[in-house]
Amino acid sequence: MCQLLGMNCATPTDINFSFRGFSQRAGITSDHSDGFGIAFFEDKACRLFVDNQSAVESPIADFIRDYPIKSRNVIAHIRKATQGKINLENSHPFVRELWGRQWIFAHNGDLHQFNPTLTGRFQPVGDTDSELAFCYLLDQLAQRFRQGHPTLQQIFDVLKEIAPKIAEHGTFNFFLSNGQALFSYATTKLHWIVREYPFKHARLIDLDMDIDFSTVTTSEDRVAVITTEPLTNNEIWQAFAPGEMILFKDGKILQQVLTTVQRLEMEKKDPSLVRKTKADPD
Amino acid sequence: MCQLLGMNCATPTDINFSFRGFSQRAGITSDHSDGFGIAFFEDKACRLFVDNQSAVESPIADFIRDYPIKSRNVIAHIRKATQGKINLENSHPFVRELWGRQWIFAHNGDLHQFNPTLTGRFQPVGDTDSELAFCYLLDQLAQRFRQGHPTLQQIFDVLKEIAPKIAEHGTFNFFLSNGQALFSYATTKLHWIVREYPFKHARLIDLDMDIDFSTVTTSEDRVAVITTEPLTNNEIWQAFAPGEMILFKDGKILQQVLTTVQRLEMEKKDPSLVRKTKADPD
Repeated sequence: MCQLLGMNCATPTDINFSFRGFSQRAGITSDHSDGFGIAFFEDKACRLFVDNQSAVESPIADFIRDYPIKSRNVIAHIRKATQGKINLENSHPFVRELWGRQWIFAHNGDLHQFNPTLTGRFQPVGDTDSELAFCYLLDQLAQRFRQGHPTLQQIFDVLKEIAPKIAEHGTFNFFLSNGQALFSYATTKLHWIVREYPFKHARLIDLDMDIDFSTVTTSEDRVAVITTEPLTNNEIWQAFAPGEMILFKDGKILQQVLTTVQRLEMEKKDPSLVRKTKADPD
Repeated sequence: MCQLLGMNCATPTDINFSFRGFSQRAGITSDHSDGFGIAFFEDKACRLFVDNQSAVESPIADFIRDYPIKSRNVIAHIRKATQGKINLENSHPFVRELWGRQWIFAHNGDLHQFNPTLTGRFQPVGDTDSELAFCYLLDQLAQRFRQGHPTLQQIFDVLKEIAPKIAEHGTFNFFLSNGQALFSYATTKLHWIVREYPFKHARLIDLDMDIDFSTVTTSEDRVAVITTEPLTNNEIWQAFAPGEMILFKDGKILQQVLTTVQRLEMEKKDPSLVRKTKADPD
Protein backbone atom coordinates (compact mmCIF):
# COMPACT_ATOMS: atom_id res chain seq x y z
CA MET A 1 0.00 0.00 0.00
CA CYS A 2 0.99 3.59 -0.34
CA GLN A 3 0.66 6.76 1.66
CA LEU A 4 -0.83 10.10 0.66
CA LEU A 5 -0.12 13.68 1.71
CA GLY A 6 -2.21 16.62 0.54
CA MET A 7 -2.25 20.30 1.39
CA ASN A 8 -4.85 22.98 0.60
CA CYS A 9 -4.21 26.56 1.71
CA ALA A 10 -5.69 30.05 1.81
CA THR A 11 -2.35 31.57 0.72
CA PRO A 12 0.62 30.01 -1.09
CA THR A 13 2.46 27.95 1.51
CA ASP A 14 5.42 25.59 1.38
CA ILE A 15 4.99 21.98 2.40
CA ASN A 16 8.58 21.41 3.52
CA PHE A 17 7.84 20.63 7.20
CA SER A 18 5.15 18.07 6.41
CA PHE A 19 7.06 16.56 3.47
CA ARG A 20 10.15 16.08 5.64
CA GLY A 21 8.16 13.96 8.08
CA PHE A 22 6.12 12.21 5.38
CA SER A 23 9.12 11.26 3.27
CA GLN A 24 10.77 9.51 6.23
CA ARG A 25 8.16 6.82 5.70
CA ALA A 26 9.83 5.98 2.40
CA GLY A 27 12.40 3.70 4.01
CA ILE A 28 13.19 4.98 7.52
CA THR A 29 10.06 4.98 9.71
CA SER A 30 8.16 2.82 7.21
CA ASP A 31 8.87 0.93 3.99
CA HIS A 32 7.09 2.90 1.24
CA SER A 33 10.25 3.04 -0.78
CA ASP A 34 9.17 2.15 -4.34
CA GLY A 35 9.09 5.65 -5.77
CA PHE A 36 7.45 8.91 -4.87
CA GLY A 37 5.79 11.89 -6.50
CA ILE A 38 4.67 15.38 -5.57
CA ALA A 39 2.65 17.92 -7.55
CA PHE A 40 2.41 21.64 -6.75
CA PHE A 41 -0.16 23.94 -8.29
CA GLU A 42 0.78 27.53 -9.00
CA ASP A 43 -2.47 29.07 -10.16
CA LYS A 44 -3.56 26.93 -13.15
CA ALA A 45 -0.10 25.50 -13.78
CA CYS A 46 1.26 22.44 -12.08
CA ARG A 47 4.79 21.30 -11.30
CA LEU A 48 5.13 17.57 -10.99
CA PHE A 49 8.17 15.79 -9.60
CA VAL A 50 8.24 12.00 -9.72
CA ASP A 51 10.93 9.40 -9.21
CA ASN A 52 11.10 5.65 -9.12
CA GLN A 53 13.67 5.91 -6.35
CA SER A 54 12.46 6.22 -2.76
CA ALA A 55 11.71 9.63 -1.26
CA VAL A 56 14.58 8.97 1.16
CA GLU A 57 17.19 8.27 -1.52
CA SER A 58 15.95 10.23 -4.54
CA PRO A 59 18.00 13.36 -5.36
CA ILE A 60 14.72 14.90 -6.54
CA ALA A 61 13.10 14.35 -3.12
CA ASP A 62 16.22 15.81 -1.52
CA PHE A 63 15.83 18.88 -3.69
CA ILE A 64 12.13 19.20 -2.74
CA ARG A 65 12.92 18.95 0.97
CA ASP A 66 15.25 21.94 0.69
CA TYR A 67 13.43 24.07 -1.89
CA PRO A 68 10.33 25.86 -0.52
CA ILE A 69 7.87 25.82 -3.42
CA LYS A 70 4.84 27.83 -2.36
CA SER A 71 1.51 26.46 -3.48
CA ARG A 72 -2.14 26.44 -2.50
CA ASN A 73 -2.74 22.83 -3.58
CA VAL A 74 -0.19 20.05 -3.21
CA ILE A 75 -0.53 16.28 -3.58
CA ALA A 76 2.27 13.85 -2.65
CA HIS A 77 2.47 10.07 -2.75
CA ILE A 78 5.00 7.49 -1.56
CA ARG A 79 4.69 4.03 -2.95
CA LYS A 80 5.02 0.51 -1.71
CA ALA A 81 4.48 -1.69 -4.73
CA THR A 82 2.56 -4.82 -3.93
CA GLN A 83 2.17 -5.82 -7.56
CA GLY A 84 3.29 -4.22 -10.83
CA LYS A 85 6.38 -2.52 -12.08
CA ILE A 86 8.39 0.14 -10.27
CA ASN A 87 8.68 2.57 -13.12
CA LEU A 88 8.04 6.22 -13.79
CA GLU A 89 4.76 5.85 -15.66
CA ASN A 90 3.25 4.10 -12.65
CA SER A 91 4.28 6.89 -10.26
CA HIS A 92 1.55 9.02 -8.70
CA PRO A 93 0.36 11.77 -8.88
CA PHE A 94 -1.02 11.50 -12.41
CA VAL A 95 -1.82 14.61 -14.47
CA ARG A 96 -4.27 15.35 -17.26
CA GLU A 97 -5.72 18.52 -18.77
CA LEU A 98 -9.49 19.07 -18.83
CA TRP A 99 -11.37 22.30 -19.67
CA GLY A 100 -8.04 24.20 -19.91
CA ARG A 101 -6.94 23.22 -16.40
CA GLN A 102 -4.49 20.66 -15.14
CA TRP A 103 -5.96 17.93 -12.90
CA ILE A 104 -3.85 15.84 -10.54
CA PHE A 105 -4.74 12.60 -8.81
CA ALA A 106 -3.15 10.19 -6.36
CA HIS A 107 -4.57 7.01 -4.90
CA ASN A 108 -3.90 4.72 -1.98
CA GLY A 109 -5.54 1.35 -2.27
CA ASP A 110 -6.09 -1.66 -4.38
CA LEU A 111 -8.92 -2.05 -6.90
CA HIS A 112 -9.92 -5.54 -7.93
CA GLN A 113 -11.68 -6.54 -11.13
CA PHE A 114 -12.11 -2.89 -12.06
CA ASN A 115 -12.49 -2.56 -15.80
CA PRO A 116 -14.58 0.50 -16.67
CA THR A 117 -15.47 1.49 -20.20
CA LEU A 118 -13.49 4.56 -21.31
CA THR A 119 -14.33 6.79 -24.27
CA GLY A 120 -10.62 7.04 -25.14
CA ARG A 121 -10.31 10.72 -24.36
CA PHE A 122 -8.24 9.89 -21.26
CA GLN A 123 -6.16 6.73 -21.44
CA PRO A 124 -3.71 5.34 -18.89
CA VAL A 125 -0.03 5.67 -19.80
CA GLY A 126 1.07 3.10 -17.21
CA ASP A 127 -0.65 -0.07 -16.05
CA THR A 128 -1.99 0.81 -12.61
CA ASP A 129 -5.62 0.59 -11.56
CA SER A 130 -5.09 4.00 -9.97
CA GLU A 131 -4.44 5.79 -13.26
CA LEU A 132 -7.34 3.85 -14.79
CA ALA A 133 -9.64 5.14 -12.01
CA PHE A 134 -8.36 8.69 -12.63
CA CYS A 135 -9.04 8.42 -16.38
CA TYR A 136 -12.51 7.06 -15.62
CA LEU A 137 -13.31 9.93 -13.22
CA LEU A 138 -12.21 12.57 -15.76
CA ASP A 139 -14.01 10.78 -18.57
CA GLN A 140 -17.23 10.86 -16.54
CA LEU A 141 -16.77 14.54 -15.67
CA ALA A 142 -16.02 15.45 -19.31
CA GLN A 143 -19.10 13.59 -20.53
CA ARG A 144 -21.42 15.17 -17.98
CA PHE A 145 -20.17 18.73 -18.43
CA ARG A 146 -19.60 19.14 -22.15
CA GLN A 147 -20.09 22.89 -22.09
CA GLY A 148 -17.03 23.63 -19.99
CA HIS A 149 -15.76 23.84 -16.44
CA PRO A 150 -18.54 23.15 -13.92
CA THR A 151 -18.61 24.60 -10.42
CA LEU A 152 -16.78 22.89 -7.57
CA GLN A 153 -20.17 21.97 -6.14
CA GLN A 154 -21.18 20.27 -9.40
CA ILE A 155 -17.91 18.33 -9.48
CA PHE A 156 -18.35 17.31 -5.85
CA ASP A 157 -21.86 16.03 -6.61
CA VAL A 158 -20.59 13.83 -9.44
CA LEU A 159 -17.63 12.53 -7.44
CA LYS A 160 -19.78 11.58 -4.45
CA GLU A 161 -21.88 9.50 -6.83
CA ILE A 162 -19.01 7.82 -8.71
CA ALA A 163 -16.42 7.28 -5.96
CA PRO A 164 -18.52 4.77 -3.96
CA LYS A 165 -19.08 2.77 -7.15
CA ILE A 166 -15.34 2.54 -7.78
CA ALA A 167 -14.89 1.70 -4.09
CA GLU A 168 -17.02 -1.40 -4.60
CA HIS A 169 -13.87 -2.80 -6.22
CA GLY A 170 -11.56 -2.22 -3.27
CA THR A 171 -9.75 0.36 -1.18
CA PHE A 172 -10.12 3.78 -2.72
CA ASN A 173 -8.52 6.59 -0.74
CA PHE A 174 -7.73 9.40 -3.17
CA PHE A 175 -6.96 13.08 -3.74
CA LEU A 176 -8.00 15.05 -6.81
CA SER A 177 -7.24 18.72 -7.49
CA ASN A 178 -7.59 21.19 -10.34
CA GLY A 179 -5.64 23.91 -8.54
CA GLN A 180 -8.76 25.60 -7.18
CA ALA A 181 -9.55 23.11 -4.43
CA LEU A 182 -8.70 19.62 -3.20
CA PHE A 183 -11.21 16.76 -3.29
CA SER A 184 -10.45 13.93 -0.87
CA TYR A 185 -12.13 10.60 -0.31
CA ALA A 186 -11.42 7.72 2.05
CA THR A 187 -12.75 4.21 2.26
CA THR A 188 -10.25 3.05 4.87
CA LYS A 189 -7.77 5.64 6.07
CA LEU A 190 -7.15 9.38 5.82
CA HIS A 191 -6.67 12.06 8.49
CA TRP A 192 -6.95 15.83 8.28
CA ILE A 193 -6.09 18.90 10.31
CA VAL A 194 -6.65 22.62 9.72
CA ARG A 195 -4.00 25.00 11.04
CA GLU A 196 -5.06 28.62 11.37
CA TYR A 197 -4.60 31.71 13.52
CA PRO A 198 -3.58 31.59 16.35
CA PHE A 199 -0.93 29.20 15.02
CA LYS A 200 0.83 26.88 17.42
CA HIS A 201 3.78 24.62 17.76
CA ALA A 202 3.95 21.25 15.95
CA ARG A 203 6.25 18.29 16.39
CA LEU A 204 6.80 15.61 13.74
CA ILE A 205 6.32 11.94 14.59
CA ASP A 206 8.75 10.56 11.99
CA LEU A 207 11.66 12.93 12.54
CA ASP A 208 13.07 14.82 15.52
CA MET A 209 11.86 18.15 14.23
CA ASP A 210 9.43 20.77 15.41
CA ILE A 211 8.24 24.16 14.29
CA ASP A 212 6.47 27.12 15.87
CA PHE A 213 4.05 28.01 13.06
CA SER A 214 3.25 31.38 14.74
CA THR A 215 6.74 32.60 13.77
CA VAL A 216 6.34 31.80 10.06
CA THR A 217 2.68 32.71 9.39
CA THR A 218 0.32 35.67 9.35
CA SER A 219 -3.34 35.88 10.38
CA GLU A 220 -4.23 35.48 6.66
CA ASP A 221 -2.81 31.97 6.51
CA ARG A 222 -4.88 28.84 6.88
CA VAL A 223 -3.66 25.40 5.90
CA ALA A 224 -5.46 22.07 5.66
CA VAL A 225 -3.17 19.03 5.70
CA ILE A 226 -4.62 15.64 4.77
CA THR A 227 -2.61 12.46 5.06
CA THR A 228 -2.83 8.71 5.50
CA GLU A 229 -1.41 8.69 9.02
CA PRO A 230 -1.04 11.79 11.27
CA LEU A 231 2.31 13.55 10.86
CA THR A 232 2.56 15.27 14.26
CA ASN A 233 2.13 13.98 17.81
CA ASN A 234 0.96 17.15 19.60
CA GLU A 235 -1.98 18.12 17.41
CA ILE A 236 -5.45 16.60 17.07
CA TRP A 237 -5.99 14.97 13.68
CA GLN A 238 -9.48 14.06 12.52
CA ALA A 239 -10.02 10.63 10.96
CA PHE A 240 -12.17 10.31 7.84
CA ALA A 241 -15.09 7.97 8.31
CA PRO A 242 -15.23 5.11 5.76
CA GLY A 243 -16.91 6.57 2.67
CA GLU A 244 -16.33 10.19 3.68
CA MET A 245 -15.66 12.76 0.97
CA ILE A 246 -14.33 16.21 1.88
CA LEU A 247 -13.75 19.18 -0.40
CA PHE A 248 -11.10 21.56 0.93
CA LYS A 249 -10.84 25.11 -0.40
CA ASP A 250 -8.81 28.02 0.97
CA GLY A 251 -7.56 25.82 3.80
CA LYS A 252 -10.95 24.85 5.15
CA ILE A 253 -13.79 22.42 4.52
CA LEU A 254 -16.21 23.60 1.84
CA GLN A 255 -18.25 20.40 1.49
CA GLN A 256 -18.34 17.15 3.43
CA VAL A 257 -20.50 14.07 2.87
CA LEU A 258 -20.63 10.50 4.03
CA THR A 259 -21.25 8.04 1.20
CA THR A 260 -22.27 4.43 1.52
CA VAL A 261 -19.59 2.04 0.37
CA GLN A 262 -20.54 -1.52 -0.36
CA ARG A 263 -18.04 -4.11 -1.37
CA LEU A 264 -19.09 -6.24 -4.29
CA GLU A 265 -19.53 -9.83 -3.36
CA MET A 266 -17.81 -12.22 -5.71
CA GLU A 267 -21.00 -13.75 -7.07
CA LYS A 268 -22.42 -10.34 -7.95
CA LYS A 269 -19.47 -9.35 -10.07
CA ASP A 270 -20.06 -8.74 -13.70
CA PRO A 271 -17.65 -10.99 -15.66
CA SER A 272 -17.12 -8.17 -18.19
CA LEU A 273 -15.48 -6.14 -15.41
CA VAL A 274 -12.90 -8.79 -14.63
CA ARG A 275 -9.47 -7.84 -15.84
CA LYS A 276 -7.31 -10.67 -17.01
CA THR A 277 -4.09 -9.12 -15.81
CA LYS A 278 -3.65 -6.68 -13.03
CA ALA A 279 -0.68 -4.50 -12.37
CA ASP A 280 0.37 -2.29 -9.51
CA PRO A 281 -2.71 -1.57 -7.43
CA ASP A 282 -1.68 1.70 -5.84
CA MET B 1 12.24 34.97 -29.06
CA CYS B 2 13.23 31.76 -27.41
CA GLN B 3 15.74 29.00 -27.99
CA LEU B 4 15.19 25.28 -28.33
CA LEU B 5 17.33 22.25 -27.50
CA GLY B 6 16.30 18.71 -28.37
CA MET B 7 18.01 15.35 -28.12
CA ASN B 8 17.09 11.99 -29.63
CA CYS B 9 19.26 8.93 -28.92
CA ALA B 10 19.74 5.26 -29.67
CA THR B 11 20.38 4.52 -25.98
CA PRO B 12 19.43 6.47 -22.83
CA THR B 13 21.88 9.36 -22.63
CA ASP B 14 22.23 12.35 -20.33
CA ILE B 15 22.02 15.86 -21.77
CA ASN B 16 24.17 17.56 -19.14
CA PHE B 17 26.98 18.72 -21.47
CA SER B 18 24.61 20.30 -24.00
CA PHE B 19 22.29 21.74 -21.33
CA ARG B 20 25.22 23.38 -19.56
CA GLY B 21 26.12 25.30 -22.71
CA PHE B 22 22.52 25.95 -23.73
CA SER B 23 21.46 27.29 -20.32
CA GLN B 24 24.25 29.88 -20.39
CA ARG B 25 22.10 31.65 -22.98
CA ALA B 26 19.54 32.32 -20.24
CA GLY B 27 21.31 35.44 -19.03
CA ILE B 28 25.07 35.04 -19.56
CA THR B 29 25.89 34.60 -23.26
CA SER B 30 22.39 35.71 -24.29
CA ASP B 31 19.27 37.12 -22.64
CA HIS B 32 16.68 34.32 -22.75
CA SER B 33 16.06 34.68 -19.05
CA ASP B 34 12.26 34.62 -18.70
CA GLY B 35 11.88 31.03 -17.58
CA PHE B 36 12.94 27.65 -18.84
CA GLY B 37 11.69 24.10 -19.12
CA ILE B 38 13.02 20.66 -19.91
CA ALA B 39 11.21 17.36 -20.44
CA PHE B 40 12.81 13.91 -20.34
CA PHE B 41 11.11 10.78 -21.60
CA GLU B 42 11.77 7.51 -19.82
CA ASP B 43 9.97 4.98 -21.97
CA LYS B 44 6.34 6.22 -22.11
CA ALA B 45 6.64 8.37 -19.00
CA CYS B 46 7.85 11.92 -19.03
CA ARG B 47 9.54 14.07 -16.38
CA LEU B 48 8.94 17.77 -16.87
CA PHE B 49 10.82 20.50 -15.03
CA VAL B 50 9.72 24.10 -15.59
CA ASP B 51 10.47 27.35 -13.83
CA ASN B 52 9.62 30.98 -14.39
CA GLN B 53 13.11 31.89 -13.20
CA SER B 54 15.96 31.89 -15.71
CA ALA B 55 17.91 28.72 -16.42
CA VAL B 56 20.95 30.53 -14.97
CA GLU B 57 19.32 31.42 -11.64
CA SER B 58 16.69 28.71 -11.17
CA PRO B 59 17.53 26.15 -8.44
CA ILE B 60 15.69 23.61 -10.61
CA ALA B 61 18.02 24.31 -13.57
CA ASP B 62 20.97 24.02 -11.19
CA PHE B 63 19.69 20.63 -10.13
CA ILE B 64 19.29 19.51 -13.76
CA ARG B 65 22.83 20.59 -14.66
CA ASP B 66 24.21 18.33 -11.92
CA TYR B 67 21.81 15.38 -12.12
CA PRO B 68 22.38 13.10 -15.13
CA ILE B 69 18.87 11.98 -16.11
CA LYS B 70 19.25 9.46 -18.92
CA SER B 71 16.69 9.67 -21.67
CA ARG B 72 16.22 8.87 -25.34
CA ASN B 73 14.10 11.95 -26.06
CA VAL B 74 14.61 15.33 -24.41
CA ILE B 75 13.14 18.75 -25.22
CA ALA B 76 14.35 21.96 -23.54
CA HIS B 77 13.34 25.60 -23.96
CA ILE B 78 14.64 28.91 -22.66
CA ARG B 79 12.36 31.87 -22.95
CA LYS B 80 12.68 35.51 -23.78
CA ALA B 81 9.18 36.93 -23.41
CA THR B 82 8.38 39.56 -26.01
CA GLN B 83 4.73 39.76 -25.00
CA GLY B 84 2.66 37.96 -22.36
CA LYS B 85 3.10 36.95 -18.80
CA ILE B 86 6.14 35.27 -17.30
CA ASN B 87 4.34 32.57 -15.43
CA LEU B 88 4.48 28.83 -15.09
CA GLU B 89 1.50 27.97 -17.29
CA ASN B 90 3.19 29.75 -20.21
CA SER B 91 6.44 27.80 -19.80
CA HIS B 92 7.40 25.31 -22.50
CA PRO B 93 7.54 22.36 -23.01
CA PHE B 94 3.82 21.65 -22.81
CA VAL B 95 2.52 18.13 -22.12
CA ARG B 96 -0.68 16.28 -23.02
CA GLU B 97 -1.70 12.62 -23.15
CA LEU B 98 -2.97 11.11 -26.39
CA TRP B 99 -3.54 7.40 -27.16
CA GLY B 100 -2.08 6.45 -23.76
CA ARG B 101 1.21 8.26 -24.40
CA GLN B 102 2.56 11.56 -23.19
CA TRP B 103 3.29 14.13 -25.90
CA ILE B 104 5.60 17.09 -25.35
CA PHE B 105 5.97 20.22 -27.44
CA ALA B 106 8.11 23.36 -27.46
CA HIS B 107 8.06 26.27 -29.90
CA ASN B 108 10.30 29.11 -30.91
CA GLY B 109 8.56 31.84 -32.84
CA ASP B 110 5.66 34.19 -32.97
CA LEU B 111 2.27 33.34 -34.53
CA HIS B 112 0.06 36.23 -35.59
CA GLN B 113 -3.69 36.14 -36.00
CA PHE B 114 -3.72 32.41 -35.38
CA ASN B 115 -7.11 31.34 -34.11
CA PRO B 116 -7.84 27.74 -35.08
CA THR B 117 -11.05 25.94 -34.23
CA LEU B 118 -10.51 23.37 -31.48
CA THR B 119 -12.86 20.52 -30.59
CA GLY B 120 -12.23 21.11 -26.89
CA ARG B 121 -10.43 17.84 -26.28
CA PHE B 122 -7.14 19.71 -25.87
CA GLN B 123 -7.37 23.23 -24.49
CA PRO B 124 -4.57 25.64 -23.61
CA VAL B 125 -3.97 26.15 -19.88
CA GLY B 126 -1.95 29.32 -20.41
CA ASP B 127 -2.37 32.08 -22.99
CA THR B 128 0.45 31.48 -25.47
CA ASP B 129 0.01 30.92 -29.19
CA SER B 130 2.52 28.10 -28.78
CA GLU B 131 0.29 26.01 -26.51
CA LEU B 132 -2.63 26.81 -28.81
CA ALA B 133 -0.65 25.45 -31.79
CA PHE B 134 0.20 22.33 -29.78
CA CYS B 135 -3.46 21.74 -28.87
CA TYR B 136 -4.40 22.24 -32.52
CA LEU B 137 -1.80 19.72 -33.73
CA LEU B 138 -2.96 17.07 -31.24
CA ASP B 139 -6.59 17.80 -32.00
CA GLN B 140 -5.93 17.21 -35.69
CA LEU B 141 -4.01 14.00 -34.99
CA ALA B 142 -6.74 12.72 -32.65
CA GLN B 143 -9.44 13.42 -35.22
CA ARG B 144 -7.58 11.77 -38.07
CA PHE B 145 -6.59 8.65 -36.15
CA ARG B 146 -9.60 7.77 -34.02
CA GLN B 147 -8.72 4.09 -33.83
CA GLY B 148 -5.54 4.57 -31.83
CA HIS B 149 -1.87 5.33 -32.14
CA PRO B 150 -0.82 5.67 -35.80
CA THR B 151 2.65 4.87 -37.06
CA LEU B 152 5.42 7.47 -36.90
CA GLN B 153 5.22 7.69 -40.70
CA GLN B 154 1.50 8.47 -40.55
CA ILE B 155 2.09 11.17 -37.92
CA PHE B 156 4.91 12.65 -40.02
CA ASP B 157 2.63 12.80 -43.05
CA VAL B 158 -0.03 14.74 -41.12
CA LEU B 159 2.50 17.09 -39.54
CA LYS B 160 4.13 17.94 -42.86
CA GLU B 161 0.69 18.95 -44.12
CA ILE B 162 -0.41 20.98 -41.07
CA ALA B 163 2.85 22.66 -39.99
CA PRO B 164 3.22 24.83 -43.14
CA LYS B 165 -0.37 26.03 -42.66
CA ILE B 166 0.36 27.14 -39.09
CA ALA B 167 3.61 28.69 -40.37
CA GLU B 168 1.55 30.98 -42.60
CA HIS B 169 0.89 32.87 -39.37
CA GLY B 170 4.52 33.45 -38.41
CA THR B 171 7.71 31.84 -37.22
CA PHE B 172 7.12 28.21 -36.32
CA ASN B 173 10.21 26.32 -35.22
CA PHE B 174 9.08 23.44 -33.02
CA PHE B 175 9.81 20.07 -31.45
CA LEU B 176 7.23 17.38 -30.77
CA SER B 177 7.87 13.99 -29.16
CA ASN B 178 5.84 11.07 -27.86
CA GLY B 179 8.87 9.32 -26.39
CA GLN B 180 9.41 7.11 -29.44
CA ALA B 181 10.92 9.74 -31.72
CA LEU B 182 11.42 13.49 -32.08
CA PHE B 183 9.65 15.51 -34.78
CA SER B 184 11.34 18.83 -35.61
CA TYR B 185 10.34 21.63 -37.93
CA ALA B 186 11.95 24.97 -38.77
CA THR B 187 10.72 27.98 -40.67
CA THR B 188 13.66 30.18 -39.72
CA LYS B 189 16.31 28.59 -37.56
CA LEU B 190 17.32 25.17 -36.24
CA HIS B 191 20.58 23.22 -36.45
CA TRP B 192 21.29 19.54 -35.95
CA ILE B 193 24.21 17.20 -35.50
CA VAL B 194 24.48 13.43 -35.10
CA ARG B 195 27.25 12.09 -32.88
CA GLU B 196 28.14 8.43 -33.34
CA TYR B 197 31.01 5.99 -33.28
CA PRO B 198 33.88 6.88 -33.57
CA PHE B 199 33.07 9.62 -31.07
CA LYS B 200 35.22 12.69 -30.90
CA HIS B 201 35.99 15.67 -28.80
CA ALA B 202 33.55 18.61 -28.49
CA ARG B 203 33.99 22.11 -27.12
CA LEU B 204 31.12 24.34 -25.99
CA ILE B 205 30.72 27.83 -27.41
CA ASP B 206 28.93 29.35 -24.40
CA LEU B 207 31.13 27.97 -21.64
CA ASP B 208 34.78 27.07 -21.29
CA MET B 209 34.07 23.36 -21.26
CA ASP B 210 34.92 20.42 -23.44
CA ILE B 211 34.41 16.69 -23.45
CA ASP B 212 35.94 13.70 -25.18
CA PHE B 213 32.79 11.72 -26.02
CA SER B 214 34.89 8.63 -26.86
CA THR B 215 35.62 8.22 -23.13
CA VAL B 216 31.94 8.20 -22.07
CA THR B 217 30.28 6.26 -24.90
CA THR B 218 30.14 2.83 -26.46
CA SER B 219 29.77 1.84 -30.11
CA GLU B 220 26.03 1.32 -29.44
CA ASP B 221 25.51 5.02 -28.72
CA ARG B 222 24.22 7.49 -31.27
CA VAL B 223 22.89 10.92 -30.38
CA ALA B 224 21.14 13.56 -32.46
CA VAL B 225 21.20 17.06 -30.95
CA ILE B 226 18.96 19.72 -32.46
CA THR B 227 19.10 23.33 -31.34
CA THR B 228 18.42 26.91 -32.39
CA GLU B 229 22.09 27.90 -32.58
CA PRO B 230 25.03 25.45 -32.62
CA LEU B 231 26.37 24.61 -29.17
CA THR B 232 29.94 23.64 -30.07
CA ASN B 233 32.63 25.34 -32.15
CA ASN B 234 34.62 22.35 -33.36
CA GLU B 235 31.86 20.25 -34.93
CA ILE B 236 29.89 20.70 -38.14
CA TRP B 237 26.23 21.52 -37.49
CA GLN B 238 23.67 21.27 -40.30
CA ALA B 239 21.19 24.10 -40.71
CA PHE B 240 17.53 23.30 -41.40
CA ALA B 241 16.27 24.82 -44.62
CA PRO B 242 13.19 27.06 -44.16
CA GLY B 243 10.19 24.69 -44.14
CA GLU B 244 12.26 21.59 -43.41
CA MET B 245 10.77 18.86 -41.22
CA ILE B 246 12.98 16.10 -39.83
CA LEU B 247 11.95 13.04 -37.83
CA PHE B 248 14.73 11.72 -35.60
CA LYS B 249 14.58 8.21 -34.21
CA ASP B 250 17.31 6.22 -32.45
CA GLY B 251 19.71 9.12 -32.88
CA LYS B 252 19.41 9.38 -36.64
CA ILE B 253 17.19 10.80 -39.36
CA LEU B 254 14.21 8.59 -40.18
CA GLN B 255 12.31 11.02 -42.41
CA GLN B 256 13.16 14.41 -43.89
CA VAL B 257 11.06 16.65 -46.10
CA LEU B 258 11.10 20.21 -47.34
CA THR B 259 7.68 21.89 -47.13
CA THR B 260 6.66 25.11 -48.81
CA VAL B 261 5.97 27.89 -46.35
CA GLN B 262 4.02 30.88 -47.52
CA ARG B 263 3.33 33.83 -45.30
CA LEU B 264 -0.22 35.11 -45.40
CA GLU B 265 -0.47 38.58 -46.78
CA MET B 266 -2.53 40.93 -44.65
CA GLU B 267 -5.30 41.37 -47.19
CA LYS B 268 -5.79 37.63 -47.52
CA LYS B 269 -6.35 37.11 -43.85
CA ASP B 270 -9.69 35.79 -42.78
CA PRO B 271 -11.12 38.22 -40.18
CA SER B 272 -12.45 35.28 -38.18
CA LEU B 273 -8.87 34.20 -37.54
CA VAL B 274 -7.85 37.52 -36.05
CA ARG B 275 -7.43 37.26 -32.31
CA LYS B 276 -8.40 40.35 -30.37
CA THR B 277 -5.76 39.88 -27.71
CA LYS B 278 -2.51 38.12 -28.05
CA ALA B 279 -0.30 36.87 -25.32
CA ASP B 280 3.19 35.55 -25.21
CA PRO B 281 4.18 34.48 -28.71
CA ASP B 282 6.84 31.95 -27.86
